[in-house]
Amino acid sequence: MYAVEVREAIMIAHSLPDPFFGPAQNKHGATFVVDVAFISEELSAQNVVVDIGRAGDALKAVLKPLAYQDLDDKEEFAGTLTTTEFLCRHIFDRLKEAVARGDLGPGAERLTRLRVTLGETHLARAWYEGSIRD
Amino acid sequence: MYAVEVREAIMIAHSLPDPFFGPAQNKHGATFVVDVAFISEELSAQNVVVDIGRAGDALKAVLKPLAYQDLDDKEEFAGTLTTTEFLCRHIFDRLKEAVARGDLGPGAERLTRLRVTLGETHLARAWYEGSIRD
Amino acid sequence: MYAVEVREAIMIAHSLPDPFFGPAQNKHGATFVVDVAFISEELSAQNVVVDIGRAGDALKAVLKPLAYQDLDDKEEFAGTLTTTEFLCRHIFDRLKEAVARGDLGPGAERLTRLRVTLGETHLARAWYEGSIRD
Amino acid sequence: MYAVEVREAIMIAHSLPDPFFGPAQNKHGATFVVDVAFISEELSAQNVVVDIGRAGDALKAVLKPLAYQDLDDKEEFAGTLTTTEFLCRHIFDRLKEAVARGDLGPGAERLTRLRVTLGETHLARAWYEGSIRD
Amino acid sequence: MYAVEVREAIMIAHSLPDPFFGPAQNKHGATFVVDVAFISEELSAQNVVVDIGRAGDALKAVLKPLAYQDLDDKEEFAGTLTTTEFLCRHIFDRLKEAVARGDLGPGAERLTRLRVTLGETHLARAWYEGSIRD
Amino acid sequence: MYAVEVREAIMIAHSLPDPFFGPAQNKHGATFVVDVAFISEELSAQNVVVDIGRAGDALKAVLKPLAYQDLDDKEEFAGTLTTTEFLCRHIFDRLKEAVARGDLGPGAERLTRLRVTLGETHLARAWYEGSIRD
Repeated sequence: MYAVEVREAIMIAHSLPDPFFGPAQNKHGATFVVDVAFISEELSAQNVVVDIGRAGDALKAVLKPLAYQDLDDKEEFAGTLTTTEFLCRHIFDRLKEAVARGDLGPGAERLTRLRVTLGETHLARAWYEGSIRD
Repeated sequence: MYAVEVREAIMIAHSLPDPFFGPAQNKHGATFVVDVAFISEELSAQNVVVDIGRAGDALKAVLKPLAYQDLDDKEEFAGTLTTTEFLCRHIFDRLKEAVARGDLGPGAERLTRLRVTLGETHLARAWYEGSIRD
Repeated sequence: MYAVEVREAIMIAHSLPDPFFGPAQNKHGATFVVDVAFISEELSAQNVVVDIGRAGDALKAVLKPLAYQDLDDKEEFAGTLTTTEFLCRHIFDRLKEAVARGDLGPGAERLTRLRVTLGETHLARAWYEGSIRD
Repeated sequence: MYAVEVREAIMIAHSLPDPFFGPAQNKHGATFVVDVAFISEELSAQNVVVDIGRAGDALKAVLKPLAYQDLDDKEEFAGTLTTTEFLCRHIFDRLKEAVARGDLGPGAERLTRLRVTLGETHLARAWYEGSIRD
Repeated sequence: MYAVEVREAIMIAHSLPDPFFGPAQNKHGATFVVDVAFISEELSAQNVVVDIGRAGDALKAVLKPLAYQDLDDKEEFAGTLTTTEFLCRHIFDRLKEAVARGDLGPGAERLTRLRVTLGETHLARAWYEGSIRD
Repeated sequence: MYAVEVREAIMIAHSLPDPFFGPAQNKHGATFVVDVAFISEELSAQNVVVDIGRAGDALKAVLKPLAYQDLDDKEEFAGTLTTTEFLCRHIFDRLKEAVARGDLGPGAERLTRLRVTLGETHLARAWYEGSIRD
């Protein structure tokens, strides 16, 4: 199993309006350091998992609607608790669509899985990993 | 597969009294930076893997009897080589018990696996990962 | 010159309402990983720069009014651009007051300087360093 | 599942002579920070995954022919695009041979898998993980 | 004293043709993770040390002629041992010129010092710090 | 001002037998990640601050009597609280002697200062910096 992982970051505001979250019910924010691992069983003719330039562009395109935003104001997240875990899955789903659309170029059909990790402090991070073939 | 990982650290003394370990047969010590990943297939109603506050408390409770101790003096480790690998498993087993006891709160029955990683220097680390459902 | 540095983190929301800041004019947020270095020329009778427990408590007390807050709603910051640089200085000033009040315990009068570093992403950080004796 | 991971680094020159790689077609270079995880289901009588001294020596022996080299001049890589992914697999294959030869000492027959990770910048890394029992 | 530090990276090939350098006399290469700290005594009207966007652009412009290059082929470095220390100073000198030219925008005349740090492995780094006002 | 910094680590046991230290009065231990910065105003004819090989050897020689030891058993530390700050200074003093003895080779007379940093957890570190010319 081969993997290539690239890193970006976003800075967002949000609140987690459920008593479960204690002080994080307040409007606050986070820097999420985002690592995405692209996973395949075989390499391309160029000995790569994926065109890392296109992979980075696809990740930037997925993150752009989130960067410097208050997630509480985004219609698509209305009524949703935008936890770190949820955002890992959200980014995973958008990247899965990007792969399906062919945004990652010829050869990306070899990709089998993605793992999206969001680091929120020096003490805590979350990730979602799943198949993009089911 | 979702995961949330939290970080703590402990500082302990011990010796590894077997010729296999060379100079580490001497009484020496270590800072172990402890990362525990809580793993599940589904999120809770609050979009989390686990109540991260309770998870942190459970980890602190497991580490407390080890912190600032000489492991050579602990009865439970008599005759045991307290290697980094062993301690990963020890912490895993105690956390598995904590989950089974319900210490991590309602919803923790969704947890399927744990991974316990101990970093001992900038050059070496060990981990144990296993199911908590078997 | 001796120094001891300790780490905490806060997660805040804010906006930077000046065209200079481009997209950061929007309400967004940040995780700030906060490192504070306590600096002195001499050690105490216990061979320390400062009581690290009290130093950590003083830092936690300074950060508490900021943690999980929207800085745009705080009266003390009305009309202020709460940049990373500004927040470094704000935390420095509050810690300087804590030292002057004696919150860091006997011996803290040896402290000569503080450096407050805020890491905002994996790519950027800011710091303020100054004397606490002038 | 237990794992022990150790770290080394190499500094190499190479070029990636295929239009796919854009500016990396030029002769350039890289520091690769190399992490190798040795994986087994059971611990030895000494409570370890592997003799970490022998594991480190085996890794150093595998890296030595690469360190401070221009990979474009190495006969074994003639006509090969020496991408980060390829080098992960190359190091994996050499270490698999080392285990099979017995270089990691008695007990290394417990090892089931290896994972070789190469970090190339603060933003990108690749890895290859596979069984050494097939 | 305020500082803002930003991070970039370059990957280069070179050789260090002096017996002093042992195996590094060979053509090899490096990833240099480049941190540049911009330092001033006062903040601007926008509470910043420098326009971080322009600072990043200036750094990218300085690094561009080095990225993906074999430094042995660059005329400006003919007869020069392109050590990590030398490259720190080279980047410092080019950024000092950029500040003098006004590339960092209005207010950059407040900058007093720069520090350029190059990380070459997980074990070694070098830096050059100096005034840009002399 | 130029600097080159190199990294090593040691694992030691000790106790801090003064009520000031709370639970650290117990026999416990630490991994200290040791960074030493060698500082000079000018570079050598080879464009380096110091022969990094000799610098590393000098650091290893200074650390060797501490590695895998119980500092409570070392005669030279009898009656001394071996805090992180104290150990920074201890290593500084031994390296200053090594420079004075000529262990770092011709050209090391250019060195003006050293900074010794000991990281003890992911949350705390200490350093001592001073002139080696006074």
